[in-house]
Amino acid sequence: MTQTGTRTATRIIGIDPGSQKTGFGIIDVEGSRCRYVTSGVIRLPATALPTRLEMIFRNLQTVIREYSPAEAVVEEVFMAKSAGSALKLGQARGAVVVACVSEGVAVSEYSARQIKKAVVGTGAADKHQIQHMIRVLLNLPAAPQEDAADALAAAVCHAHARLRPVVAQL
Amino acid sequence: MTQTGTRTATRIIGIDPGSQKTGFGIIDVEGSRCRYVTSGVIRLPATALPTRLEMIFRNLQTVIREYSPAEAVVEEVFMAKSAGSALKLGQARGAVVVACVSEGVAVSEYSARQIKKAVVGTGAADKHQIQHMIRVLLNLPAAPQEDAADALAAAVCHAHARLRPVVAQL
Repeated sequence: MTQTGTRTATRIIGIDPGSQKTGFGIIDVEGSRCRYVTSGVIRLPATALPTRLEMIFRNLQTVIREYSPAEAVVEEVFMAKSAGSALKLGQARGAVVVACVSEGVAVSEYSARQIKKAVVGTGAADKHQIQHMIRVLLNLPAAPQEDAADALAAAVCHAHARLRPVVAQL
Repeated sequence: MTQTGTRTATRIIGIDPGSQKTGFGIIDVEGSRCRYVTSGVIRLPATALPTRLEMIFRNLQTVIREYSPAEAVVEEVFMAKSAGSALKLGQARGAVVVACVSEGVAVSEYSARQIKKAVVGTGAADKHQIQHMIRVLLNLPAAPQEDAADALAAAVCHAHARLRPVVAQL
């Protein structure tokens, strides 16, 4: 929690895992308002997978220690093109989740459909629509790189979901 | 490296990742001789996957800190029954690899076929044959639990492979 005047903002990190590129995006949330903090992409060299998993873990650990998010969000993956790509993606996702929980940051999960619906309004949005809407929603001068945009979208989805129980009581 | 008289033994941890049970087995290797140190199974409750990944990571970290293996071996997985099971297995494997590399232990990978061939003599061995041969090779009073036996088999495979470059030069 970050003190902002009399109200408190919650810092959320969204992460988009991949065995070649892992995107991350951090926002501060206060009520229904989301403020951009930072985002980036961890680009992984074509080395052995254990080395790449270590790079994901260490780089995310550094980001988490620097920005101290209170909560983390990772896209839930149900499907993959093949069992082979699922194994690679799964391992990257495992490294991402462990980087968060080992730093004491709880991980929430949402499906790609839920994230797209929260940001673009439809579960069938493409990458460009997400980049565009993230730029608009977070008032950015330019669209973020696509993996960073997906990570920010996951964080925004979680920010909206945190409000939902209150709305449902009306 | 552990001093044993005038020669040095190398301690190897083998790990068999799984999202329900993760086996581990530690041996000391001196030349072609393998000595059993310990083995066990991390049984995971039916909770959310991030919690299970955290348990794999923290339990393995504890084992690694207690026994200080110099090298780690994890079975390489190419195939899975489905993309869904590959994703779960992949995430468990990611948590395992990160637990090793974050403690400074390098990870080697062998296929299931290589491990079976090293321990049983054929790449098509079943779980019971592996448990039996691990009991014989490591001179144990009883066969280890099957996931622990698979983990010990991975460690034994690596112990043999470390000798092979010398044999190949003859």
